[in-house]
Formats: sequence, C-alpha cells, structure tokens
Amino acid sequence: MTSEFALIRQYFTRPSTHANLGVGDDAALISPSAGMEIAISTDMLVAGTHFFTDAAPHDIGWKALAVNISDMAAMGAQPRWATLAIALPEADETWIAEFTKGFFDCAGKFEVDLIGGDTTRGPLNISVTIFGEVPQDQALRRDGARIGDDIWVSGYLGSAAAGLAHLQGKIALKNDALQASLDALHRPMPRAELGLRLRGLAHSAIDISDGLAADLGHILQASNIGADISYAAIPKLPALEASIHAGFEACVLNGGDDYELCFTAPQDKRGIIGNVGQELNLNLTRIGNIRAGNGLTVYDANNQPISMRKSGYDHFSP
Amino acid sequence: MTSEFALIRQYFTRPSTHANLGVGDDAALISPSAGMEIAISTDMLVAGTHFFTDAAPHDIGWKALAVNISDMAAMGAQPRWATLAIALPEADETWIAEFTKGFFDCAGKFEVDLIGGDTTRGPLNISVTIFGEVPQDQALRRDGARIGDDIWVSGYLGSAAAGLAHLQGKIALKNDALQASLDALHRPMPRAELGLRLRGLAHSAIDISDGLAADLGHILQASNIGADISYAAIPKLPALEASIHAGFEACVLNGGDDYELCFTAPQDKRGIIGNVGQELNLNLTRIGNIRAGNGLTVYDANNQPISMRKSGYDHFSP
Repeated sequence: MTSEFALIRQYFTRPSTHANLGVGDDAALISPSAGMEIAISTDMLVAGTHFFTDAAPHDIGWKALAVNISDMAAMGAQPRWATLAIALPEADETWIAEFTKGFFDCAGKFEVDLIGGDTTRGPLNISVTIFGEVPQDQALRRDGARIGDDIWVSGYLGSAAAGLAHLQGKIALKNDALQASLDALHRPMPRAELGLRLRGLAHSAIDISDGLAADLGHILQASNIGADISYAAIPKLPALEASIHAGFEACVLNGGDDYELCFTAPQDKRGIIGNVGQELNLNLTRIGNIRAGNGLTVYDANNQPISMRKSGYDHFSP
Repeated sequence: MTSEFALIRQYFTRPSTHANLGVGDDAALISPSAGMEIAISTDMLVAGTHFFTDAAPHDIGWKALAVNISDMAAMGAQPRWATLAIALPEADETWIAEFTKGFFDCAGKFEVDLIGGDTTRGPLNISVTIFGEVPQDQALRRDGARIGDDIWVSGYLGSAAAGLAHLQGKIALKNDALQASLDALHRPMPRAELGLRLRGLAHSAIDISDGLAADLGHILQASNIGADISYAAIPKLPALEASIHAGFEACVLNGGDDYELCFTAPQDKRGIIGNVGQELNLNLTRIGNIRAGNGLTVYDANNQPISMRKSGYDHFSP
C-alpha cells in the first residue's frame, strides 16, 4: 500500500504560482498584495451529507473547491490560495487521482493555488479553506442592504435541488432537464468574476448555498431590514419548470447547492449591472426589493404571499 | 433539536480581537501587518485515528487547536487567526460546550482568534486551519540545516506515545508517570514562544508530530543532508524512563504527538539558545549534529548505531 507521504507528494502537490512557499513544510507562506484585506472561508463536505458516497470523485473534487470559491465571489474577493484537508477510508489511488483531477481542474480555471493540506485515514471528509484578496473596505458584506435596493440573483435557481430530488427518486427527470439539473448539482460554477465586478455596485451579497429564502434571510437579518420578492420573477430553467409539476417551488425557494449570487444594489445601478451580465454572458435578474421592517415575503402570480414553511436547509434540524 | 445556526452562534462565536470581520459572513476579513508573510497550515483530526472517540471533549478541543499552533511555532510565526470546520454525529450540546471550552482555552492562551468555521453532520472530524505572521524571509523552514549545525529538541520526548501505549493496554503506568504521559497526549503545549525566539537563531525547524526520527528525517531530506544523534542525549521524563522497561525506545524515537520542536542551529549560538531555554523555563537539549551525506543515524550508549525499523507514523502504512 502506498504511504501517506507518497500519496500527498504525487497527487496533492502542484507548483505554486503565487505563494512564497507551497506544500511541504510546516506551513505555507504567502504575501498579500499591499492595501488588500484577506478574505478567509472554510467549508467541509461529508460523504452522505453533501454528496453521495458513490458520486464521481472528479465531481467531488471540483465541488469541494467550487463551493469555497463561491464564498469568495460573495465577498467580492479574488480567490488566490486554498488548503485541503481530507480523510479517506482507504488509499484508493484511482479515486484519489480522479478527485485531485477535479479539484485541480477547478483550481486551474479560477487560478487558485493549493498551498497546504493534510491527508489522513477516516470516513470520507473533505475540508477546504480558501483565501482571497479584496481591496480594503470594498468587501461585499451581508449587512449593507438598504431600503429601496433591488434584489438580484445570478443564473437560475432550483436546478441543483431538482437534480438531488431526481437522484433521491422523488421526481423523474429526462433529457435536457435531467442533464442541466445534474450538472448544477455536481459541477457548480462559482460566480467569481461577477463577485469582482460587483465591488462598488452592490450594497450586500451572499451566495446561495442553503436556498434563496434562507440566504436572502441572512442578508435581511444582518442588515436588519425586510424584503419583498416575486416568485414569478425568480429565474428558473424553462426545461425544469416545464417538467416538474410538484415540489419545484420548494426547489427554487429552499433548495440549496445552486451557488448563484444573491445581491442587493441601488436602483440607479440597473443599467450598469445589466451590462455586467451581458459582458459575462450571465443571466442577472431582479426579483424584488428591500423594504423597511423585517422578514421575507414571497408573492405568487396573483400577488398573494406564499407561505414559507421552512427557512432553509439545516443539517441538524429534523 | 437545536438548529445548526443556533449552535454556531452560541458556541463557536466569540468576538474577534484582531480581525476586521469575524464569524458570520461568507468570509472573514483580516489585514496582515506590513512586511509580514502569512504562514498557513491545516490539520485534520479524526475520531478513532487521532483521538479515542470517548476522549474528553475539552481535551479534543484543546488539542485540535494546539497541534495547529505547533505548526506556527515550527515556522517561527506568531499564531493569530484560525478557522474550525467540524462534523458532528449529533448535536450533543454538552459535548459541544466542553469541546469549545477546550478550544477557546487554547485560543485564549495563545491569543488566536477563531474567525470562521463550518458545522455539519457526519462522523466526528475536526479540521482546523491556522494563520500566523512572520517577518518576510525569517520563517524557520525545513530546508535550511547546514553541516555542523547542532540538533536541538525542546521538552521531553516519548511521553505522549507512552500515554497512548498505556491507554491501549500495552504498558501499565502509574502515578506521576501516568499523569505526565496522559497530559502530554491529551493537552500538548505548543512551543509558540520558542518558535518566535528562534527567528534568526535556528537554521531549520520542525515540530515533532510524527516522531523524532520521521520529523528530523524531513529536515534532512529537505536540506539534503545527514545527521548523527545520541539516544542517551535525547531528553526523556525520568519517571517514564524508570518505569517502562520495553518499548520506550520506540516511544522516544518514533512516537508521535509530542509537539516539541526539533531545530538545528550553528554551534556558536549554544549560549544564546541556552539563555532562551532558561528564560522560557523550557528544557532545550542538544542531541546531535548535522553532517554531510544523508540519512539519520542514532547511536546507543556504546556508540553503536540503533537499527531504525520504522521511519515514523504513517496513517496509510500497514
């Protein structure tokens, strides 16, 4: 059996392009650029909770880094460095090769250096910590939403939750709808470039990992403010909306794992934000407005409030 | 059952003393001091591999941070910030309260801010990433050992391994020997202050997490150099040396988890290093020298090489 150290060297070590010292010492060394704050976030993915144990290792590797890059996007930070700690039930070289390929495919696309890590034996668990740079005082925080702000989301919501529901046998998708929803679930595309472009435009931002209602709720709570949104305005993939007859509303409002950005911005920025969407070839949609008060109200097509049974995905709730 | 978010707020959130933004947004924000490099390290602790599943949660919390602080010490970096990702099989409030107390006891002692985290459901797994500051080009690396350097270690070696052997029923310790070895195993004391004092003195350093032979071996490999050490010179707790009649040599040479520092320094620094030990009230011992060639040779009391069967602890070796 290959030793831990050989495994680390072979699969988890790549040359660093912007670290002073990468993998292989007691710590990595980085030098942030002058005038930059360092944004730091960590996400842990557990087999059986965040992905199916038999999921394709390439997808798991991609997603483990992508969800962390998404946190950088939500802060308006340029992702730069990451560490990866992983517990593996066995030293399965094929699995590790595919996993690291997925991880480094994502790292390469978003120019993130893997600068440190830990590999150990245990139930499959992947913990990534990511570091980005953002100019001092320009980070997109949750607590900056203001009355009158437009509420925007990127991409389409509910797709990843639909994919999960399909894999759980709760719905049966086919063709384009199936492919799109599984892609969204397995290979989320963090909106890193959008996050950078929103510096100076958005008043607040968050990435949608726990569902729109829960994550927009975090903005409202942090900003001590309320919001009205229109269910009809929320962008959904037409192929999914057409093929799911029950439960899609819950996917859209409460489904996690989309990793789109939800942000608020002043109304006079609509034109600029529209241009950003065009330049990035990314759907950006206004879904409602920030208002005084607190809490989120979602209106249906008849302008009636939709009852919100669940405020989002919660690992420890029944 | 308490929700994940309530758990996080209640137990894992403390005010940050030197972060711009702590727990509660998509990322934390820190501003490194001017002229400093950021040292980054990550360690994952898995139940059953790194600690007994029924170990005291206070000890687990302490150790999870302490082993990471030890990596900062080994780099000569001032530990400053940490993130904690934890998977818990259930939301056991008593366990979490004790665990976080142990974690924050260690954080408080070493003035480390917990600035971010993730809490999820899964087999018990604790992943900590730590960040420290070190003046540009002053980090203590593994690759700086030079021919003629003295080899030093702090504290006493083999104690944690003896405690583990006792808990595994391989040996039976009593009284002071038992207490000292269990303390070493459960509540390691990272040598943070020593690491800072060794800037400009030591040519290379590492913390002893996998055993002296393996960790000194990492210095030798990175520096492309060899070493001779004397077994008799290695500092051991007298109470342990007196009470363990078989296997103590393996504890001292190959036992992990001591989290003492092993470092090399020029011979003309002996006086200064001796003074550092006195000022810190910490045992610092010369155990041998760096030589040309490669590999580690350990000599017994009769000046005969001790056969090294195993080069250290390896999670994936049989």
